Amino acid sequence: MAAVKSPLSEAAQKVTGEALQGALVDLVDLGLYAKQAHWNLVGPRFKTIHEHLDEIVDLARTAQDDVAERAVAIGVNPDGRSRTVADRTEIQQLEPGYLNDEKVVLAVTGTLFEIIGRFRERIAATDEPDPVSQDLLIGITAELEKIHWMFQAQA
Amino acid sequence: MAAVKSPLSEAAQKVTGEALQGALVDLVDLGLYAKQAHWNLVGPRFKTIHEHLDEIVDLARTAQDDVAERAVAIGVNPDGRSRTVADRTEIQQLEPGYLNDEKVVLAVTGTLFEIIGRFRERIAATDEPDPVSQDLLIGITAELEKIHWMFQAQA
Amino acid sequence: MAAVKSPLSEAAQKVTGEALQGALVDLVDLGLYAKQAHWNLVGPRFKTIHEHLDEIVDLARTAQDDVAERAVAIGVNPDGRSRTVADRTEIQQLEPGYLNDEKVVLAVTGTLFEIIGRFRERIAATDEPDPVSQDLLIGITAELEKIHWMFQAQA
Amino acid sequence: MAAVKSPLSEAAQKVTGEALQGALVDLVDLGLYAKQAHWNLVGPRFKTIHEHLDEIVDLARTAQDDVAERAVAIGVNPDGRSRTVADRTEIQQLEPGYLNDEKVVLAVTGTLFEIIGRFRERIAATDEPDPVSQDLLIGITAELEKIHWMFQAQA
Amino acid sequence: MAAVKSPLSEAAQKVTGEALQGALVDLVDLGLYAKQAHWNLVGPRFKTIHEHLDEIVDLARTAQDDVAERAVAIGVNPDGRSRTVADRTEIQQLEPGYLNDEKVVLAVTGTLFEIIGRFRERIAATDEPDPVSQDLLIGITAELEKIHWMFQAQA
Amino acid sequence: MAAVKSPLSEAAQKVTGEALQGALVDLVDLGLYAKQAHWNLVGPRFKTIHEHLDEIVDLARTAQDDVAERAVAIGVNPDGRSRTVADRTEIQQLEPGYLNDEKVVLAVTGTLFEIIGRFRERIAATDEPDPVSQDLLIGITAELEKIHWMFQAQA
Amino acid sequence: MAAVKSPLSEAAQKVTGEALQGALVDLVDLGLYAKQAHWNLVGPRFKTIHEHLDEIVDLARTAQDDVAERAVAIGVNPDGRSRTVADRTEIQQLEPGYLNDEKVVLAVTGTLFEIIGRFRERIAATDEPDPVSQDLLIGITAELEKIHWMFQAQA
Amino acid sequence: MAAVKSPLSEAAQKVTGEALQGALVDLVDLGLYAKQAHWNLVGPRFKTIHEHLDEIVDLARTAQDDVAERAVAIGVNPDGRSRTVADRTEIQQLEPGYLNDEKVVLAVTGTLFEIIGRFRERIAATDEPDPVSQDLLIGITAELEKIHWMFQAQA
Amino acid sequence: MAAVKSPLSEAAQKVTGEALQGALVDLVDLGLYAKQAHWNLVGPRFKTIHEHLDEIVDLARTAQDDVAERAVAIGVNPDGRSRTVADRTEIQQLEPGYLNDEKVVLAVTGTLFEIIGRFRERIAATDEPDPVSQDLLIGITAELEKIHWMFQAQA
Amino acid sequence: MAAVKSPLSEAAQKVTGEALQGALVDLVDLGLYAKQAHWNLVGPRFKTIHEHLDEIVDLARTAQDDVAERAVAIGVNPDGRSRTVADRTEIQQLEPGYLNDEKVVLAVTGTLFEIIGRFRERIAATDEPDPVSQDLLIGITAELEKIHWMFQAQA
Amino acid sequence: MAAVKSPLSEAAQKVTGEALQGALVDLVDLGLYAKQAHWNLVGPRFKTIHEHLDEIVDLARTAQDDVAERAVAIGVNPDGRSRTVADRTEIQQLEPGYLNDEKVVLAVTGTLFEIIGRFRERIAATDEPDPVSQDLLIGITAELEKIHWMFQAQA
Amino acid sequence: MAAVKSPLSEAAQKVTGEALQGALVDLVDLGLYAKQAHWNLVGPRFKTIHEHLDEIVDLARTAQDDVAERAVAIGVNPDGRSRTVADRTEIQQLEPGYLNDEKVVLAVTGTLFEIIGRFRERIAATDEPDPVSQDLLIGITAELEKIHWMFQAQA
Repeated sequence: MAAVKSPLSEAAQKVTGEALQGALVDLVDLGLYAKQAHWNLVGPRFKTIHEHLDEIVDLARTAQDDVAERAVAIGVNPDGRSRTVADRTEIQQLEPGYLNDEKVVLAVTGTLFEIIGRFRERIAATDEPDPVSQDLLIGITAELEKIHWMFQAQA
Repeated sequence: MAAVKSPLSEAAQKVTGEALQGALVDLVDLGLYAKQAHWNLVGPRFKTIHEHLDEIVDLARTAQDDVAERAVAIGVNPDGRSRTVADRTEIQQLEPGYLNDEKVVLAVTGTLFEIIGRFRERIAATDEPDPVSQDLLIGITAELEKIHWMFQAQA
Repeated sequence: MAAVKSPLSEAAQKVTGEALQGALVDLVDLGLYAKQAHWNLVGPRFKTIHEHLDEIVDLARTAQDDVAERAVAIGVNPDGRSRTVADRTEIQQLEPGYLNDEKVVLAVTGTLFEIIGRFRERIAATDEPDPVSQDLLIGITAELEKIHWMFQAQA
Repeated sequence: MAAVKSPLSEAAQKVTGEALQGALVDLVDLGLYAKQAHWNLVGPRFKTIHEHLDEIVDLARTAQDDVAERAVAIGVNPDGRSRTVADRTEIQQLEPGYLNDEKVVLAVTGTLFEIIGRFRERIAATDEPDPVSQDLLIGITAELEKIHWMFQAQA
Repeated sequence: MAAVKSPLSEAAQKVTGEALQGALVDLVDLGLYAKQAHWNLVGPRFKTIHEHLDEIVDLARTAQDDVAERAVAIGVNPDGRSRTVADRTEIQQLEPGYLNDEKVVLAVTGTLFEIIGRFRERIAATDEPDPVSQDLLIGITAELEKIHWMFQAQA
Repeated sequence: MAAVKSPLSEAAQKVTGEALQGALVDLVDLGLYAKQAHWNLVGPRFKTIHEHLDEIVDLARTAQDDVAERAVAIGVNPDGRSRTVADRTEIQQLEPGYLNDEKVVLAVTGTLFEIIGRFRERIAATDEPDPVSQDLLIGITAELEKIHWMFQAQA
Repeated sequence: MAAVKSPLSEAAQKVTGEALQGALVDLVDLGLYAKQAHWNLVGPRFKTIHEHLDEIVDLARTAQDDVAERAVAIGVNPDGRSRTVADRTEIQQLEPGYLNDEKVVLAVTGTLFEIIGRFRERIAATDEPDPVSQDLLIGITAELEKIHWMFQAQA
Repeated sequence: MAAVKSPLSEAAQKVTGEALQGALVDLVDLGLYAKQAHWNLVGPRFKTIHEHLDEIVDLARTAQDDVAERAVAIGVNPDGRSRTVADRTEIQQLEPGYLNDEKVVLAVTGTLFEIIGRFRERIAATDEPDPVSQDLLIGITAELEKIHWMFQAQA
Repeated sequence: MAAVKSPLSEAAQKVTGEALQGALVDLVDLGLYAKQAHWNLVGPRFKTIHEHLDEIVDLARTAQDDVAERAVAIGVNPDGRSRTVADRTEIQQLEPGYLNDEKVVLAVTGTLFEIIGRFRERIAATDEPDPVSQDLLIGITAELEKIHWMFQAQA
Repeated sequence: MAAVKSPLSEAAQKVTGEALQGALVDLVDLGLYAKQAHWNLVGPRFKTIHEHLDEIVDLARTAQDDVAERAVAIGVNPDGRSRTVADRTEIQQLEPGYLNDEKVVLAVTGTLFEIIGRFRERIAATDEPDPVSQDLLIGITAELEKIHWMFQAQA
Repeated sequence: MAAVKSPLSEAAQKVTGEALQGALVDLVDLGLYAKQAHWNLVGPRFKTIHEHLDEIVDLARTAQDDVAERAVAIGVNPDGRSRTVADRTEIQQLEPGYLNDEKVVLAVTGTLFEIIGRFRERIAATDEPDPVSQDLLIGITAELEKIHWMFQAQA
Repeated sequence: MAAVKSPLSEAAQKVTGEALQGALVDLVDLGLYAKQAHWNLVGPRFKTIHEHLDEIVDLARTAQDDVAERAVAIGVNPDGRSRTVADRTEIQQLEPGYLNDEKVVLAVTGTLFEIIGRFRERIAATDEPDPVSQDLLIGITAELEKIHWMFQAQA
């Protein structure tokens, strides 16, 4: 079972692979996090935020597929298994049970802001080793910052 | 923050809620499991199985949304957070790294067969307490059994 | 002018026909009720609820067509005329004039809960005489309970 | 709960509001009437007329939404509740039970002709007070007259 | 060449497999029957019934695929070969040559009624052994009964 | 460079041209106004109103194209340049910086009401000289009044 | 064979019917005229004008259907047969053989201008007897004047 | 103004050009003929035949464009002007006024049969000189014969 | 019940009718044959061939409709009933039970090659009597030969 | 009313914000500029350039939304009001009245070239402070340079 | 590695194979030729011809796929490699650098005329050996002659 | 015939132009290469790889258009003529005749890897002179690396 031959040097591959794996954990858990809020939400703004959260889910799912496939394209195995995600995620988890709409908006805003911080570090880290992966991370960051603005605007 | 008023009796709600929460954990982890295989797959049948696995992902994602929203519709809070899923899943986890196509087919076939077994128990359990939830579980089981056949047929 | 030949026994046809006719009155009036609220709504949540009410209208219109055509398929004439609906409806009517958004959410939640109660009785009643009609009623109940949860969540 | 500020003078608003409310009752009941015939129809031309009746339903539903929203846009509350429609409708009601296709064609033709008469009065009445509402009523009349021709052509 | 592992017990599999195989023969021949009428039809109602017959073809083709794939999903081999269908069909065959529209309507109505009778037996037979297959048979019966009503209504 | 030959008399062309040019300035600035609010909006109703404002932008852009092309069709040059719009607009401008959702709803409601007033004058002015242009202005007014109602309803 | 019952008085029907029949002849021949030019066109601007002419064909065909169906809806038989059109058309016919692009643009511009003149007379003539037909003629005139501008602009 | 250079010899071009011009006249008049019947039709089968006639119109319009553009592609100018069509058509014209559905079916059947006869002559005539044009004529004949069957089947 | 009047001479009709009826039997049985393989397939290439077989089904169904409707268009009654197909088919039937993928590819390749041989004879036979039917048979042969290549290429 | 929390340092935010605001003014005015030309264009190439100008409008509108929303996403308020645009635009304004096609092509080519120059400065300016905004500006520049080439190619 | 079994005799296969291979070279190079002109075009008619050339590209690409797959379907290997095409093409190559629109129109017209000549020879050559391939070549020739007319018409 | 005015300095234009021209040759030949394999492929994985190769063709065709149009946008003439491509391509050519699926997978993997190497050089070369072209090359490289991974994974 041959590994995928990387277009990158070993060093570049290592740095880039770590950035992508970190991004993967963030994005898989962001998708689960937003779904959890989507399902358990209550409050007068329920309908709007219920649907808005699904836009985060879509963003997270599309982006997690892109970063995972980018990882394997440079010869690095992505790991998006449930245990891996649960163990490595840096996202502050939601409480079980009903979630008030106002609090969800605040929590999502904060969570996105922290993920954005980590993505900006990954953009910086990949600048030299792999501009192709960096371009993907820039694109995802643009979307994360857009939806962060939208949640903050309604906070 | 008022709970959602249930159309079921307390007892019926409890049994049905447990069936749905169990289904949710199965389906969330099935989605992550199939994605992990989708990304790390190698072997001569790569393209076909890579795409076939995404059909499992689609099935799992649609079904997890349906069971979670069914749970909250009967006044039970679904829990699909990463830690909950990692802790409670009964699915045998995949190894990290590249996954050979032949082995993936066998693993997926076995995993689906076990999930189907649990779903058939949930169908039996909800027959009395809630025929509406039962109907949803029957529909998902039909799809799981169809895709199980397809993977087994190519094993 | 020959009647449609029923696949059911006379007794089964009678019970099932009554369940379907009762469902028809509920669904026709639910559609008119939701449109009345859709048009006369005011309040800060106007846009969201205005559109959400139209989802009830869509559900009610699709479902009323299904139950009426199911009735005639088993040889029972559905009656969805305005006078019949006005005389037999058990839905508590809305006041004329502007309707405040908050109150509409409460009223819709309550109305749906009562309709769901009647649908659950119809599911029980048709279990023996006609599993085909029962399956239709189960499907509609699932949708009613889903939208009931959504309105209650924002109450 | 503030009323919608009308772009019309009080007198113009009154005349126009009455024309629109009258149109609303006609259109809501036309929709129920055509559905009743759609469901209970029998006869050799069943399929064609069954579907043709649904074109009336579509026309009636689209138009009733337009006139009701036009009413509220000029500060008048539309009333499309089942009791209001049943009490005020001038449409001659259909008999319960199976409806022969030939008779349905004649009945629909006659009913549409009478509704058209009332719409032409409403066009005349709104000419001065509100050319915007008049334009809407002209558009609906054009559609009613087109479908009236089609039913009469097959009478 | 390994058989597909069944989620059912051997006994349940046998009963369910027979119900599905019987349904398959009915549905394959119904498709051929309706096409034969579709092609050889004459009479003043030609266009309407020519197209209506194709709706039966669509229903029959979709349903035959569903029951055959359901059979193999429970480990039973469906047999839809031309000789099998010709030998086992219980549908009364059409005469060769032109087929008068009025007679076709009567023949189709009768044929559907008999198929429905056999499907209702299959629903009863599968209730215990496999609620998942039963749910599929209920769904197909609902469609058969709907189109049976439509043909009878124009008889 | 020949002018477009007008189907109108010189006098009719002049009156109609002024009405259309006035409408153009209103509509171009309405589009810019709604975009400015769309971008700088904050508050709990952000998402709903952010999207609702884009419906105004769509309305304004479609309508400005229609009136400008109507003007040139009758031989009058429309002027929609930024300086012309800035100098001639009668719309009260928004403040720079973040805009609170509640205030935006009030401001938009007021702005639309004033534009509607000017459009009603243009409808009256073009009645004699050009019923074709009048019909266009009536159509736009209907849409402006509909969206005015929707904003006022949530004020 | 009963005539279609007209919603108009006999006098109104006569005037309106003449306006619509005149419009029909104009529009049928405009369609044939534009197709003739579409096929025989030569010159450097061939591709653009070849396609632009088909927009006239589309406009003419849609409008001829609308006016003919409007005529029969008010109980007047439209006559669009080839001989009728050839005998009554007032459009100046094209020469046979290749048609130079520059000349086609001029000819089309002139032809449209004359048709518009006749449509404006029909708008005036139907104002009293039938505002519904008038509204249709206004709509077609708006489209004719728009495409007239476009051809003149490139003359 | 240069003629289009023909890929055919002069003799082949002449024969083929005549076949195509003859086809064009048939097809343009068939389109007008079917529209005339479409508009003036009455009788119990109105709806079905009204729509069926529009399928002839579509066929005729698509085919007339194809033959005309085929003619110019071989350097022959098609002539589809109203006077040319009226003078050269061999189609027996319809009476003015209402047209009974039964008679229309017979008339259309007969008209199509005669057109088909002329097309079969054109297929024979173009076999040698231009197989490309022949292929187009064969394709149109197939469609004419299909719709001829359908009309005859309901005669 | 009048026969459809044929555009062909009696002799030409006979030869062409036989060719089309033969094609019909081939195509109906090809459709059933491919579905049987589609359902009972096993082996490592299951997914790809399972779907590829459905392309044969689609081809066979579309083509059988075309040849049957072509037959009736020339006044010959097509016979596609199950008994007729079972009795006259020259296709070597598949074994019941699971079908190995490798063997299915070989069997399909061989079956298509034989059908193609019969279609080439039908093309030759119809050349004189009916170029329109021949053109249809040529088109179907092109598709059969294309899919034959694809199956042989993977044999 | 809290400002949107920026993912950038204050200095980076300032530089980036100025680049985006400058781009916004360019793009809003480019949209108005291209519409003005779109409406007032005359000359033999009218149709082609009329439509080509709308591609600039689409580009400008999409891009202005992107840069404005990017600005607010980094905590900077975009200003796209009519007065701001009129006062700050560096685009050389078009003359009022009819605009000759040849001159429009030259003017648009020149205007785009100047805007591109300013965008290239903005790309350089944002390289350090915000690669995410820079990526957006690069994308818009690519489109501006593409359409600049197209206009210059036809100059 | 078995060759594809041909439905043709060896002699017929040889002649047909040569015709198809010749067509392939023409079509591959026509696609490259048209793209080269598409990219390097300048002149006042740039936009129209730039897009028109892409219609040739589409035609050439679709047709090259069809002839290549037809070749392999009769057991002949198509050769569309760059060197083969460069060596065997009979198309007169374009100059490098900018290409004036007027000259491109003339060059394309000439090139298409020569390709058409070769295709007509291939139609003649395949008439006996393979009517199926001939039918494909006829279809492509029809399209080539249509687009040839269009380019010549604007020359 | 004026050259397109470049937004780049002469030096930057030269470097960027060479990178783009090199990319063009790679992409045009990659498209021809993948089509050659697509047509001549044999082996058990035929269907999957046949279709997968067309994804390379799509990628290559879209990308070649993008780089060629980017070249001319910066004032450099792209050269994609068959002779240029054949002479300058660095891709190792395929053998004529049937191509075994396993070998094709290896050959494509190797070819893509080499093209990727050249693209990464072009990304480095354009970083300074033109970030806009670089961004395009990065985007294409991402797609090439993704499809390279997929082919290697199945090698």
